Amino acid sequence: MTDLENSLATIIDVFHKHAEKEGDKHKLKKSELKDLINDELPNLVGQVKDQATMDSLMESLDSDGDSECDFQEFMTFITMVAVCCHEFFEHHEDE
Amino acid sequence: MTDLENSLATIIDVFHKHAEKEGDKHKLKKSELKDLINDELPNLVGQVKDQATMDSLMESLDSDGDSECDFQEFMTFITMVAVCCHEFFEHHEDE
Repeated sequence: MTDLENSLATIIDVFHKHAEKEGDKHKLKKSELKDLINDELPNLVGQVKDQATMDSLMESLDSDGDSECDFQEFMTFITMVAVCCHEFFEHHEDE
Repeated sequence: MTDLENSLATIIDVFHKHAEKEGDKHKLKKSELKDLINDELPNLVGQVKDQATMDSLMESLDSDGDSECDFQEFMTFITMVAVCCHEFFEHHEDE
């Protein structure tokens, strides 16, 4: 497996590790998504403490309206984080 | 950096390594995308040899119609690959 392939495997593994904790093991509920962000993205996203932020994040990701975050919806979140990081590096590099 | 954060950094690095080879260094042209798939995703996607497959892939990713693949469009491709792999593992696991 290449570095890029291992990276995709890591994203899938991290999703499952958190999704299987409670309820539907193929979906993240809001508390699982919050723990995932706080545990797995502390440097890129930072700690999410307030409920309003989580409510609004889940609402923006939950495209099928079941109040949970499935893998496809999780990839939307990963894309948001990656695009933000990429823009930061790109602007930094152009300076 | 956590494993998930390093995975996002790898995705950004791989995109840039290939995008900067020719032309606009912030975008993948079709030949760069083809080399990226063949070099970095040989096990998950396999070798892409025929031009029609690349034409059709680039057309489906190129949402802004500039015939190149920017980072946001590349993340759509990464999402497609991750969702396919995730579905494979999910079905495999349920058997």
